[in-house]
Amino acid sequence: MGKVPRILSWRNMLVLSLAVNFSLILRILKGTDGGNSSYVVSIWPVVSNSLDRTVYGDSKWPVVSTTASGSSSLSSASCTYNETQEDDHRIINLKLGDPMVYERYWQEMGHMTTMVIAGWQSLSYFSDNNNELCWFLEPELAKEIVRVHKVVGNAVTQDRYIVVGTGSTQLYQAALYALSPHDDSGPINVVSAAPYYCSYPLITDCLKSGLYRWGGDAKTYKEGGQYIELVTSPNNPDGILRESVVNRSEGILIHDLAYYWPQYTPITSIADHDVMLFTASKSTGHAGMRIGWALVKDKETAKKMTEYIELNTIGVSKVSQLRVAKVLKAMSDSCGNETAKSFFEHSYDAMFERWKLLKQASKTSKGFTVPDFASQRCNFLGKAFEPQPEGIVDCEKFLREKKNILTKSGKYFGDDLSYVRIE
Amino acid sequence: MGKVPRILSWRNMLVLSLAVNFSLILRILKGTDGGNSSYVVSIWPVVSNSLDRTVYGDSKWPVVSTTASGSSSLSSASCTYNETQEDDHRIINLKLGDPMVYERYWQEMGHMTTMVIAGWQSLSYFSDNNNELCWFLEPELAKEIVRVHKVVGNAVTQDRYIVVGTGSTQLYQAALYALSPHDDSGPINVVSAAPYYCSYPLITDCLKSGLYRWGGDAKTYKEGGQYIELVTSPNNPDGILRESVVNRSEGILIHDLAYYWPQYTPITSIADHDVMLFTASKSTGHAGMRIGWALVKDKETAKKMTEYIELNTIGVSKVSQLRVAKVLKAMSDSCGNETAKSFFEHSYDAMFERWKLLKQASKTSKGFTVPDFASQRCNFLGKAFEPQPEGIVDCEKFLREKKNILTKSGKYFGDDLSYVRIE
Repeated sequence: MGKVPRILSWRNMLVLSLAVNFSLILRILKGTDGGNSSYVVSIWPVVSNSLDRTVYGDSKWPVVSTTASGSSSLSSASCTYNETQEDDHRIINLKLGDPMVYERYWQEMGHMTTMVIAGWQSLSYFSDNNNELCWFLEPELAKEIVRVHKVVGNAVTQDRYIVVGTGSTQLYQAALYALSPHDDSGPINVVSAAPYYCSYPLITDCLKSGLYRWGGDAKTYKEGGQYIELVTSPNNPDGILRESVVNRSEGILIHDLAYYWPQYTPITSIADHDVMLFTASKSTGHAGMRIGWALVKDKETAKKMTEYIELNTIGVSKVSQLRVAKVLKAMSDSCGNETAKSFFEHSYDAMFERWKLLKQASKTSKGFTVPDFASQRCNFLGKAFEPQPEGIVDCEKFLREKKNILTKSGKYFGDDLSYVRIE
Repeated sequence: MGKVPRILSWRNMLVLSLAVNFSLILRILKGTDGGNSSYVVSIWPVVSNSLDRTVYGDSKWPVVSTTASGSSSLSSASCTYNETQEDDHRIINLKLGDPMVYERYWQEMGHMTTMVIAGWQSLSYFSDNNNELCWFLEPELAKEIVRVHKVVGNAVTQDRYIVVGTGSTQLYQAALYALSPHDDSGPINVVSAAPYYCSYPLITDCLKSGLYRWGGDAKTYKEGGQYIELVTSPNNPDGILRESVVNRSEGILIHDLAYYWPQYTPITSIADHDVMLFTASKSTGHAGMRIGWALVKDKETAKKMTEYIELNTIGVSKVSQLRVAKVLKAMSDSCGNETAKSFFEHSYDAMFERWKLLKQASKTSKGFTVPDFASQRCNFLGKAFEPQPEGIVDCEKFLREKKNILTKSGKYFGDDLSYVRIE
């Protein structure tokens, strides 16, 4: 089912995943952007932009619009164009992103995923009186979560408790609440190997919790006693498949597997961890629904996570859950269709195209390089290995000042200034 | 518009607001429940049940189903019946509730509020690129929020910033985050006059925040320095219209006006406070959407509240916002209809009927009384005064052990054991 043999010439497109027109970079770096007509390109901002405001204190936001030349080769639904007369305020924002790359696919699916909701539906707080644990989880969503993981083969669902959240961000906090000691031992350290998702330290420390606190880079973590290690795999921002690095018996693990889907990375094994987080934003692209889910081995942990979500938001939007259930169903159905490309093949191709354009741009420019990854066999899409060179060079300041390209500096990910993340 | 003169023989039905069949209490207290056929009555649990589990550590939940006699006079859509053979496990749960009382109204409205959502809609994180503050607020929802407050006359919206949240629970936490000092002065005390909504202490203290902590009953609060006072008006659980009680210049106020709608209480003035919280759960009854909104006077406060919601859940479900926008529109439209009852008149009548039944039950029984309130003029529905006696007597233990009626003891609201709250 959906296991079409194909060549994987990349390992992880996550780094740059969403909402970018690479041909623009190419043109601008080459200085060939002086066409006759010009456009405002609104590149959709990303997840991290919410936090950019926190970090940078931008007064106005979203940030981006830029002029670019001619009828560019933009194919992404994530960019919109408006003509403009001004050519001297050209800014390209690659700090920010949005999963609009998937919009075209869902448009092509037509009314298969159209939902009709009557005004008297979903009034109740409660979704499932038979679910003695996560009472606000829609049974239909639970069913489709189990099915899609079986179809893709990316995570164990048997004997796991499903906890639904308002995005995986809320589930990360629910997991911290559930896994932290609630005695008087003081806050437990939460660590992750750098470079880590720049939002994690901010989310962890924003309320100065007495239960947990950000403990920094897991690679240099030396403190004794219990700790929580966050393993993001594939990693945000660098796309590497990861495992725990501290490896001590007192470690409690949370696995953020938001990007562990075949459009981003080869599915090399069925993930089987204590707490695994997923989100619709990255799997189906429905970020605006704010739906994530956790697969949890231990009942008490799942119970405490549910308790956090009760306290934090008294459950999760039912209509969003039903919307995501329907989309997951279509996604799974597409994998059994022999005559048409599956959602994942379609998305893989879109990502592949973007990655190719970025690599072209980096070859033309002497200013920067993009990372290459050793290929691995993907159990879902097929088998293939292709060696790639490695290395990233450049800095946020250079791109911003010399090229009017906004990127996110490595420093926000606990990494070197010579790295940037683009979306 | 909608200002139909009518007699208000109550002040606040909130105490018992939702999801109860009072005729059952009447029958059971009178001991007339031995009919020929018996039923399981599932009374929907409420908001507070999420917290009941925290407090009571119930292992299984939702809690309730009960057998009751014959074809009762239940009219509420909030109760469902299934026949059962067992009559000895009869339990009535009045601890819990759900705004299913509104279901019938929305059903009668038919397809006026039906929504169709295509699978490719609402993928983006972003709702409004022109909103430099709350970028995840759907413009359509903002428009309908302003309109409904104008129609009802219950809150000032001019020159206010609207922040949308995943229910007003999230907005309460956003307000705490925004209003607490972020320096090293330690946690600020959050106080509220007892009896207060039993969830507030739990929500406030669940993460042992270094920014804020629960400071208890505002009526006995003596500490110096800055503090936050939460004013819930009408109050949950007792329905009284309230004002700040500490009244010191260092006080920062949050007004929870979730129940300040004409089906619950006379609208006596246009609320005009710094931070006012509202929720769809209590206004339209769409609890399952998890949509609340704050009207905020100060821009920096609104910005910090937005920042919290970014960190906590990266925005709010778009489809839920659009669903609530459509329902609010129908609600406002109904107030301009001269030939049919408005949503508020309809809901007022439903609440009135329930209150009347409960009062009948309390008169028949010597075991307990229910409160009466002095009537006040409602600017929205009309004018009327009617004096009412006062007093509540009874305790949770008596009702539970002697009558198999589950209620919520006054102790969870910072109040006396002789009081209970029922839903």
